[in-house]
Amino acid sequence: MESSPFVDSLVFNDQGLIPVVVQQVDTKEVLMVAWMNSDTVKQTLQTGKATYWSRSRSEVWIKGATSGNDQRVISLAKDCDSDTLLLTVDQSGAACHTGNRTCFDDSVTHPEVSG
Amino acid sequence: MESSPFVDSLVFNDQGLIPVVVQQVDTKEVLMVAWMNSDTVKQTLQTGKATYWSRSRSEVWIKGATSGNDQRVISLAKDCDSDTLLLTVDQSGAACHTGNRTCFDDSVTHPEVSG
Repeated sequence: MESSPFVDSLVFNDQGLIPVVVQQVDTKEVLMVAWMNSDTVKQTLQTGKATYWSRSRSEVWIKGATSGNDQRVISLAKDCDSDTLLLTVDQSGAACHTGNRTCFDDSVTHPEVSG
Repeated sequence: MESSPFVDSLVFNDQGLIPVVVQQVDTKEVLMVAWMNSDTVKQTLQTGKATYWSRSRSEVWIKGATSGNDQRVISLAKDCDSDTLLLTVDQSGAACHTGNRTCFDDSVTHPEVSG
């Protein structure tokens, strides 16, 4: 794929991956965290569809390719040390494979964790 | 530290760490991503102050201990496969060491990345 100054500036881990926080554009819900490699960052930006690297399947994973619950890319930001991405999307349907809107559905509220 | 069913259910990576997405409670800004180990998850929930494991300094890092820009814990959620945390906080001042409110200050908008 063609070079991109943005992608070239990113810091990938020793597995060639970078974590991606995915946020819904209007509600600002944090939907999920996934991982990209250099090629899937480029593919995401070129296609406008969120595309990850599946660590469990070791393959490119176009979000929603099978479920239909795709993520249209609004913007992509990197953090201050360039080793984390924040992807703003418009999510179709559920983000989580469980059918929930977001993957973060199990929470504790301070100080209720004790015991 | 005492046992916690929530902490016991988490999946830490091969370095004993779990990534933590930090979100501001009212504005829903994603402020930063940091890492915790088992002890700092417990410490965060017991003290109500966000406490991380600094990978660069290999030490416990109580956010704001030196800068004053601490994070009061509102709630902590885990994702569907228990290997990522979402920490909702009330951030004092800047979250980023650069002085910016959030660490995500450098973004591209689809499809402007090309070239």
